[in-house]
Amino acid sequence: MTDKLLDYSKLYATGLPSPAGRWEGIYEYNFTTGHGNPDLIPIDDFIESATKTLKRSGRNLAIYYSDGGPLGNLELRQFLVEKLAKHRGVSVSVDEIMITSGSTQGILLINDTFLESGDTIITELFSYAGVLRNAERRKVNVIGIPMDEDGMRMDILASTLADLRTKGVKPKYIYTIPTLQNPTGTVMSMERRKEILRLSIEYQVPIFEDECYADLVFEGEWEHAIRSLDQSNHVLHIGSFSKSLAPGVRLGYVVAPEDVMSQLLPSKIDVGTNMITAMMVADFLQGHYEEHNSALRAGLRRKRDAVVAALGEHFGPSVDFYQPRGGMFIWVRFPEGVDTNVPLAAAKREGVIYNPGKEWSADPQNHGSNYLRICYGLPSESQIWEGIGRMAKVFNQEASFS
Amino acid sequence: MTDKLLDYSKLYATGLPSPAGRWEGIYEYNFTTGHGNPDLIPIDDFIESATKTLKRSGRNLAIYYSDGGPLGNLELRQFLVEKLAKHRGVSVSVDEIMITSGSTQGILLINDTFLESGDTIITELFSYAGVLRNAERRKVNVIGIPMDEDGMRMDILASTLADLRTKGVKPKYIYTIPTLQNPTGTVMSMERRKEILRLSIEYQVPIFEDECYADLVFEGEWEHAIRSLDQSNHVLHIGSFSKSLAPGVRLGYVVAPEDVMSQLLPSKIDVGTNMITAMMVADFLQGHYEEHNSALRAGLRRKRDAVVAALGEHFGPSVDFYQPRGGMFIWVRFPEGVDTNVPLAAAKREGVIYNPGKEWSADPQNHGSNYLRICYGLPSESQIWEGIGRMAKVFNQEASFS
Repeated sequence: MTDKLLDYSKLYATGLPSPAGRWEGIYEYNFTTGHGNPDLIPIDDFIESATKTLKRSGRNLAIYYSDGGPLGNLELRQFLVEKLAKHRGVSVSVDEIMITSGSTQGILLINDTFLESGDTIITELFSYAGVLRNAERRKVNVIGIPMDEDGMRMDILASTLADLRTKGVKPKYIYTIPTLQNPTGTVMSMERRKEILRLSIEYQVPIFEDECYADLVFEGEWEHAIRSLDQSNHVLHIGSFSKSLAPGVRLGYVVAPEDVMSQLLPSKIDVGTNMITAMMVADFLQGHYEEHNSALRAGLRRKRDAVVAALGEHFGPSVDFYQPRGGMFIWVRFPEGVDTNVPLAAAKREGVIYNPGKEWSADPQNHGSNYLRICYGLPSESQIWEGIGRMAKVFNQEASFS
Repeated sequence: MTDKLLDYSKLYATGLPSPAGRWEGIYEYNFTTGHGNPDLIPIDDFIESATKTLKRSGRNLAIYYSDGGPLGNLELRQFLVEKLAKHRGVSVSVDEIMITSGSTQGILLINDTFLESGDTIITELFSYAGVLRNAERRKVNVIGIPMDEDGMRMDILASTLADLRTKGVKPKYIYTIPTLQNPTGTVMSMERRKEILRLSIEYQVPIFEDECYADLVFEGEWEHAIRSLDQSNHVLHIGSFSKSLAPGVRLGYVVAPEDVMSQLLPSKIDVGTNMITAMMVADFLQGHYEEHNSALRAGLRRKRDAVVAALGEHFGPSVDFYQPRGGMFIWVRFPEGVDTNVPLAAAKREGVIYNPGKEWSADPQNHGSNYLRICYGLPSESQIWEGIGRMAKVFNQEASFS
């Protein structure tokens, strides 16, 4: 018997992403990803809810879908019906809500259902890297619409839709993160929310509204979701408990018309979302949502203020950024010609990690390389000061930037 | 503003599965799916493990991947290193194990990485419906190899591989469930395990070994995994805690060579498996695995005996089946010409549900329609007797069968 090793690379499908590198662990000054605040995990309340719901419904764990069928935990969907009405102005039934494993799964289900190679979607010019990478993997064209402080520019969206129509291209959806946009932190004005819906109806192109940060507004108005304005069926809406509770719970949701829901379900081949966490979280949220979220927002506000102050102190006027009214990140613009990818290796050696801007760009050839994203959910205020100080030192040395 | 409804069906990708029907709930006499035994969910121990691990590591929930990186919970992987060595004869390191959301996710990751339209895979003639459906959706050709009581027929596998080679077709993998095969309940003999590995090496086609039922052997020998014989790198191996613990935990694992693992990881775009359940289960298993599994096997054995007796009593010699040495299902053969799909609607009206055989067939045009699968994890012994009695009555009335 020969022991010649099998060369798996000859068996792989074509067009795969590059293999993963070795995991680098958690950096001390970690400004990447939507991590939460470890000090605000409600451990005792989680234990209480886990104990209570395991006692009450633990036997159901033996039975697939027994917590509410393929759409997921019924109690959590009932909580969402109330929460969406109260906070987001959205009126839906439990049958229009699906519980997912993070909002990421919602994005994948919608993409599985709508997208195929050669399709076109519209996003904000700077947008969630996960959506951009997934479109790229599916060989889908992404058109990025420039933004200002009120969110996606509606004049450019209108002319883009008109232009695509003359070319016979019908985009599959307009993906937007209207509230605390990732990565810019901007909030789409109510006027533009109405206008994007008008354009969606005029061109019969659905809006794919991602509200995964919408609970984190800590200043100014808390604008209702675009979905709240939708009297017909033009908006697909997703949300998450990863940011408002903890990434580790891996729970999100999709709100969709029932006919779309029944077409999303066959792609949800995970045989159900995690039941233990869903029942624990459903119980926790009923008693503690308001209180928990208000502590969360207060903590994020202090950290945002620290980042803003530290950027001013360590980088000075040579960087520019929009001060967000909430959320967990700041999108920092460097002068043209700076490539924020260049100092990353040196920054890591200093224990600092951040997200270079190009990965958040729908048009990375032309936009994004002089930006970076600073996430501030995880580091403490003192880590923010120290980490941004180290970052500034590295940028001065490595990015031919002063 | 017009309120014309958007016709989503015009926007869907081509080749989607049929939309899901309304969920029918849980039938009283439920003989479908790998449900577990609600009486054997270790509720108090789960509460103890949840309390202990949330106290110790709850803060980590704020940080993506903090329980062990992209491969998943490190404690659970360490448990698996020991368990696989002790019970399955498999020697691996934690870097060759990935925690997944059920073994289903392992199947999808392997399929995402290896399969594309027009590819060929080999399975047992009757095999897991989820794998067959996923291959179909990917437009992958499935070749089903006939089986006997010792599992997949190696003579036919050998001639099939030779035949494919002359046609210039290289299958992407040979998928097998060697231990308590789904749906037949057979166990592949050790001699055939050696032979399938020899063929894998000869033809340089990997084996995809699914051991999701392997913990449930309650009679006779507990044959080691095919992976235990593999001195090179020819076997990809998956397993699950859905059957040995509870479907509701949604935890499984992939064992793969490190180079394959690094190519599977970029397709795992769920941003981490559920952390709360993973830490709870890792703690539970360390103290209770042996004891829990032995109770589980004893319970399943009693239920298997009840199904065997009830089939004898209510159906008599007109049905034929293999009495499995473990697991949670029995594959029942009816005379040629009976279509087990026909009586299903009437059975449901009687509160009885089962899996018609065609869905478990790699060649449904020619094989499977006179079979059905009876899963016995969920119903109590009295429900087994009553349910199989009702099933027999319906079959006598509806299937022109006596």
